[in-house]
Amino acid sequence: MDLKKITAEIADDLDFLKTFTATPGNGCTRMPFTRETRDAAEYLKKIMKEAGLEVREDCVGNIFGVLPGRDRSLPCIMAGSHYDSVYNGGDYDGIAGVICAVELARMLHEEGKNLECDFVVAAFMDEEGCRFGTGYFGSKCMLGQMTVEECKHFTDKDDISVYDSMKSYGLVPEDLVNAAWPEGSIGHFVELHIEQGPVLDATSIELGLVDCIVGIQRYMITVNGRSDHAGTTPMDMRQDAVDIATKVISKIGDMARAEKPGTVATVGYMKVTPSAMNVVAQSVDFSIDIRSTENEIIDKIASQIMTELDKETQATGATYSVDRKLTITPVQLSGAMLDIMEGSCKDLGYSYKRMPSGAGHDALAIGQSIDTVMIFVPSKDGRSHCPVEHTEYEAFSKAVQVLYELIQKI
Amino acid sequence: MDLKKITAEIADDLDFLKTFTATPGNGCTRMPFTRETRDAAEYLKKIMKEAGLEVREDCVGNIFGVLPGRDRSLPCIMAGSHYDSVYNGGDYDGIAGVICAVELARMLHEEGKNLECDFVVAAFMDEEGCRFGTGYFGSKCMLGQMTVEECKHFTDKDDISVYDSMKSYGLVPEDLVNAAWPEGSIGHFVELHIEQGPVLDATSIELGLVDCIVGIQRYMITVNGRSDHAGTTPMDMRQDAVDIATKVISKIGDMARAEKPGTVATVGYMKVTPSAMNVVAQSVDFSIDIRSTENEIIDKIASQIMTELDKETQATGATYSVDRKLTITPVQLSGAMLDIMEGSCKDLGYSYKRMPSGAGHDALAIGQSIDTVMIFVPSKDGRSHCPVEHTEYEAFSKAVQVLYELIQKI
Repeated sequence: MDLKKITAEIADDLDFLKTFTATPGNGCTRMPFTRETRDAAEYLKKIMKEAGLEVREDCVGNIFGVLPGRDRSLPCIMAGSHYDSVYNGGDYDGIAGVICAVELARMLHEEGKNLECDFVVAAFMDEEGCRFGTGYFGSKCMLGQMTVEECKHFTDKDDISVYDSMKSYGLVPEDLVNAAWPEGSIGHFVELHIEQGPVLDATSIELGLVDCIVGIQRYMITVNGRSDHAGTTPMDMRQDAVDIATKVISKIGDMARAEKPGTVATVGYMKVTPSAMNVVAQSVDFSIDIRSTENEIIDKIASQIMTELDKETQATGATYSVDRKLTITPVQLSGAMLDIMEGSCKDLGYSYKRMPSGAGHDALAIGQSIDTVMIFVPSKDGRSHCPVEHTEYEAFSKAVQVLYELIQKI
Repeated sequence: MDLKKITAEIADDLDFLKTFTATPGNGCTRMPFTRETRDAAEYLKKIMKEAGLEVREDCVGNIFGVLPGRDRSLPCIMAGSHYDSVYNGGDYDGIAGVICAVELARMLHEEGKNLECDFVVAAFMDEEGCRFGTGYFGSKCMLGQMTVEECKHFTDKDDISVYDSMKSYGLVPEDLVNAAWPEGSIGHFVELHIEQGPVLDATSIELGLVDCIVGIQRYMITVNGRSDHAGTTPMDMRQDAVDIATKVISKIGDMARAEKPGTVATVGYMKVTPSAMNVVAQSVDFSIDIRSTENEIIDKIASQIMTELDKETQATGATYSVDRKLTITPVQLSGAMLDIMEGSCKDLGYSYKRMPSGAGHDALAIGQSIDTVMIFVPSKDGRSHCPVEHTEYEAFSKAVQVLYELIQKI
């Protein structure tokens, strides 16, 4: 394997794809069913064909390139990621996993090493869910988990539905059911992705072998106190929503720190009402995002938070309400594939770390029913979903080398 | 003294003044130098004249009515409050103290009981400071503590300065210096006001004898952390501004509770940036409002907060900045006048409580240099600065009875 050649080919493709953004000079903005995804899709189809693949765009905008195996009745090995982005995102989140999968196909094709089964490169539409508030759209369609009704339900900020935007894009939403692959047709799924976190970069480790995608629970909490004059209301006659809420919020980070690594808990959103210097707060809304590789840990932290909310509100006669926004169960990835990748890292001399993914990916949807694995490359300073997102091209080719061995050994 | 007659006269005046609002049906909105203050001023001058007073409006919009004493060279006794309001405020905050002072003058006049010195009814312009972000404007002008430059500096939300609004109102701002009363010309100042807090109402006490107006320190704090992905950033690699700020804020109320009654500390304003569910907070801005009857206590709490901020930011490498917004020293009111009032309460059979004022008043500005006392009447449920602000009219007349004895005994 020629590391320099792999690096150069990946660099060429990723550099060209950077131009397909709605915000040139300010990061990648490639929303689903827009001019930018169309341009990227056409480019992907072109390079897949050049790599010797049978190429098709399905009825929801996923692109597949197939390198036929010796026995085409066998379940395929699929590799890929998504080709949409967030608003003003980076140039590698998602699309790098697609390009590296194309590179794998190129290598197989050039070396005449067709696999026993089909090797499929996948470029999924709309993983981020930024435009419509969805998420994993393309991979869920492939898994037969999306309906035409849902396409009509979800709309963007201009009130355009997924359904209508698909039609404007030249697709037939009613065909959506045809996007589902037959059960058992995909044997293994492999996704390369930037880490989007600081661990590999901070510890100078070359590759992350992802053994689990964390589960997530998200809540929106409202603490209802009473608005009072900040000067004239004695401390013991208050129902101060800020006092109550901060007594709970200040403990949430420590709850996560007390659990095993890979557990995080975050209050990122807070809104105080009326939020005036001289008025005791009437209410505080805040979000909670809890993630862990074990569902029991997530449940435990959620329960600890509710106990604290009970205690602090009861002490003053205030009340609170809970709105559960999201529940995702952790997905354990394929131990067998991880062992093969670990062996390759050792053979090739690359430093590696088994680690969970704290973010969701197409592999989260796919890994629920199909043997799946992910490989991470370092994100400079852990930055992602922003224009400064950066990964050295050589890091991608190291991961491609490990995956090249994996897909042949499965 | 005829309680029913006093109550009826106060009720007549307050009911009429309720109509001078820019927001009929939604509380009192009487901003300085507007049509509403002009209407209220004309009504006040009319009833002062009918009460036998020598009436004048000074060059900043304060209204004074003088009942001549037997020796006009003596320092006067002044009673009154302000006649502006907050936006959508109540019908009693400020103006009730003016009307009760007019009632005192009426009683003296009707009973032919002219005092040894002049008795002056004062109605001050713009105590609330809502329109221009000032405060105690009229009383400060009377004390010679306001300048033409300041009038040019402070502007309202439409960028109109105090200076320009005075001119539109028919005043000559350059005359401002003439609003100052000669040093020593005011011997005593007495202010009746609604409590604006819940203490009297909750404990069914009829009158509050205010022995101190609390000092205030206000700060705006910014905790600067680092924005990170809430899923992919391990807990020990974060500078989570919400985690840091809430660890400090959650202790602030308890710091005040540990001190003597009359001490309060409030975080009313909070702003989280970027405030997204899945993003570790980059920064938190929050306000601190600390009040106490003793400056040492305020200083101590402020110092404890800074110590906590040092500790929590240093633990993660985050930083913070402090902007001191307001410093007011506590004002001790006249012990001699309080003793007289206490005697009157006992004689008249009214329940009373010596208590601090947690809010600022014209008496705060005036009490720094002149013997001053305040009397509070109960606020229903402690509500104030809102349309539901309510006090029984009879409560005002009880306070008037106590003040009537006071001004004759001084």
